[in-house]
Amino acid sequence: MFMVDLIAKKRDGHALTSDELEWLIRQYTAGAIPDYQMSAWAMAVLLRGMDDRETTDLTLAMAHSGTMLDLHDLAPITADKHSTGGVGDKTTLLLAPLVAAAGLPVAKMSGRSLGFSGGTVDKLESIPGFSATLDTATFRRLVREVGLVVSAQSNDLAPADKKLYALRDVTATVESIPLIAASVMSKKLAAGADCIVLDVKYGSGAFMHTLADARHLAQAMVAIGTRAGRRITAVLSSMHQPLGSTIGNALEVREALEALRGGGPPDLVELCLTLGSQLLCLAQFCADEEAARQLLQQVRASGAAWAKFRQMVAAQGGDVAVIDTPDLLPTAPVQIVLPAPQAGYVTAIDGMALGLVVNTLGGGRSRKDELLDPAVGLTLQAKVGDQLARGQPFLTIHAATRAEAEGVTPRLLAAYTIGPTSVTPPPLVEEIVS
Amino acid sequence: MFMVDLIAKKRDGHALTSDELEWLIRQYTAGAIPDYQMSAWAMAVLLRGMDDRETTDLTLAMAHSGTMLDLHDLAPITADKHSTGGVGDKTTLLLAPLVAAAGLPVAKMSGRSLGFSGGTVDKLESIPGFSATLDTATFRRLVREVGLVVSAQSNDLAPADKKLYALRDVTATVESIPLIAASVMSKKLAAGADCIVLDVKYGSGAFMHTLADARHLAQAMVAIGTRAGRRITAVLSSMHQPLGSTIGNALEVREALEALRGGGPPDLVELCLTLGSQLLCLAQFCADEEAARQLLQQVRASGAAWAKFRQMVAAQGGDVAVIDTPDLLPTAPVQIVLPAPQAGYVTAIDGMALGLVVNTLGGGRSRKDELLDPAVGLTLQAKVGDQLARGQPFLTIHAATRAEAEGVTPRLLAAYTIGPTSVTPPPLVEEIVS
Repeated sequence: MFMVDLIAKKRDGHALTSDELEWLIRQYTAGAIPDYQMSAWAMAVLLRGMDDRETTDLTLAMAHSGTMLDLHDLAPITADKHSTGGVGDKTTLLLAPLVAAAGLPVAKMSGRSLGFSGGTVDKLESIPGFSATLDTATFRRLVREVGLVVSAQSNDLAPADKKLYALRDVTATVESIPLIAASVMSKKLAAGADCIVLDVKYGSGAFMHTLADARHLAQAMVAIGTRAGRRITAVLSSMHQPLGSTIGNALEVREALEALRGGGPPDLVELCLTLGSQLLCLAQFCADEEAARQLLQQVRASGAAWAKFRQMVAAQGGDVAVIDTPDLLPTAPVQIVLPAPQAGYVTAIDGMALGLVVNTLGGGRSRKDELLDPAVGLTLQAKVGDQLARGQPFLTIHAATRAEAEGVTPRLLAAYTIGPTSVTPPPLVEEIVS
Repeated sequence: MFMVDLIAKKRDGHALTSDELEWLIRQYTAGAIPDYQMSAWAMAVLLRGMDDRETTDLTLAMAHSGTMLDLHDLAPITADKHSTGGVGDKTTLLLAPLVAAAGLPVAKMSGRSLGFSGGTVDKLESIPGFSATLDTATFRRLVREVGLVVSAQSNDLAPADKKLYALRDVTATVESIPLIAASVMSKKLAAGADCIVLDVKYGSGAFMHTLADARHLAQAMVAIGTRAGRRITAVLSSMHQPLGSTIGNALEVREALEALRGGGPPDLVELCLTLGSQLLCLAQFCADEEAARQLLQQVRASGAAWAKFRQMVAAQGGDVAVIDTPDLLPTAPVQIVLPAPQAGYVTAIDGMALGLVVNTLGGGRSRKDELLDPAVGLTLQAKVGDQLARGQPFLTIHAATRAEAEGVTPRLLAAYTIGPTSVTPPPLVEEIVS
């Protein structure tokens, strides 16, 4: 088999066979196919597409390029969740303890912040002492002992994906739905969970800007998971404005803790109930979604979910004092409250712009090796549809210095659209793909 | 400027600016853009295309990546010719002396054999002592002193094309009309001739299989040359069967010598009169094509073209004894004549198959570093439209050993189609693009 022939086949719009894709990924992982051939193939895939069978074969080949976790000796059934990423997305911090407290073990690997989008691992590591860098033995032990673990992505899982993703990043071949689907799902399949719920976000604060693109991606991922024998559904959720009322690592942990104690922003809670009930139904823990939502509400109201989160933090080395007393979380030295520049209704919030501002404040990364400041971020006092009087506080900047806060103020004002008439925000959950 | 942004721009179907293409080629030639980015861009170009302005800008950038020859201190006007390559294509061997003998200096760089297609340089080097590896000073001196020079492609000219072509070859990005046009024309522009005629071949024995593809390529190359201020036309010629009656380096030199002495196969002579008259008209040496053809016929009949070829061979170190006595050219030890397996008319000859047979016999190359045998090849006693009796000789194999000749016989028989009714071969010259 020659790589140049496989590139030509895809270039001419034909589907590669299972054997061809398996060979391609094996040779690439082994370093026998050079990057310049792989990037030409990736561009051909981006422009010519891949069918469901091809995408599944590619995903399975990438999943099998490293360790395939099998968790069945630890628990009869386990759950995992993936979000395509969005601004203010602290869903895992609430969802995972809710589901685990309902009795379904959650074994999750998460990413770090990059670009405008935050990462669950960075959020959790704003808890002093918390470590998300776990070896496989520890990951497995915590599934069994706690029934809840959130770790950083292991280097042992899907190394082909890691290598290919780094190449796609510098060759303008990221924006391919089959390649995105294969990247996500190769890691999910390798991580071993039986039940997978995908939170596919669309809108100005997400990677997918349109509902149609999000739906295609969701369908591609669900098709892969189903063909690979997993139980899987995808929820298409709106990211037309940030989720909840906070953006920034420690601020988002604090907001999640409020939600675990029964409070918290309604959009965050609603999304977690939707995602969580999907998982409980996939696991056949509940007869229907309504029963599942009731069970999740119950573990939230009883404090069981909060206690499960606290148990996970303790097991991963975190200081549980901050769980008990969230004021102990890192706090930025400067808080500046922005007054509304005019009266009116908030008609749009550019989530990506807010995410990039938090990045500028030191709360995210432009490059993979940057350190970040867990304390900085934004608190939103108004969301889309809210009415503002002129001068009314609508946004708080949490920054390391006054100069930094003032430096980002014009960008924040530009990210809000205030108009004369009220608007209804788009529904949080648009549809479920299964 | 970031290469990833330029790749994305082309991926999304937009045209790159002149500055962007100039930057891209300069950085790539300098080694500052890695191959894995260049190949992704090349695939995006192949699948998204380039407009005439872009293609010209790319060509000019590649031409300017090395030495740009200026021949105006040697001759007021010079000519060059390029063929897209075909089986049995010894056109340069006849055309260049004809045009030079008519008074228009020809300064030509040529390629070597690769794959099914022969190379003029290898044909000339079957003349003992002949060297096509000339430095720039020698190339320039021969333009002035002889008015005719055929050298191998200089490494100083268009190094960006050399680097990009090698990459395209292994990344399935050869078959892009804008990239092929830019590759050919960057070398032609750098080589300095004022008048350029392109022989764009189509059919089973050419790189372009269809007339439509050949026409697109011709139009693209003529557009580049015209935008770059050169006088240029393209001739679309049929390669549905090999040109002339020989395939193989020394055999083709011998056939060209016959044509230079006033004989030779009618298709070869006709094509050279067409190409040559285009050049003489571009140079305004003749009022019209008819006058140009008469002048070319005259220098052929008078022996002036033959004498010019002999002068070039002498100037480039070749043994002129073989020009005077072609029987001194290398001769294969084994000649086997194939008898027609059935009576009928030759309805098709697969030129590519014959070219690959000559390659197998040792007359061509599969890899760039292979040595070749100048003596081996094929003589065609029948061409498309000819009637054959059963057992009548129709093809002679010239081989190093009887075993090698017998080994290729089944492939040769399969390359000929013999049918019950006569067919008219397609016209040799389909159209002229200017």
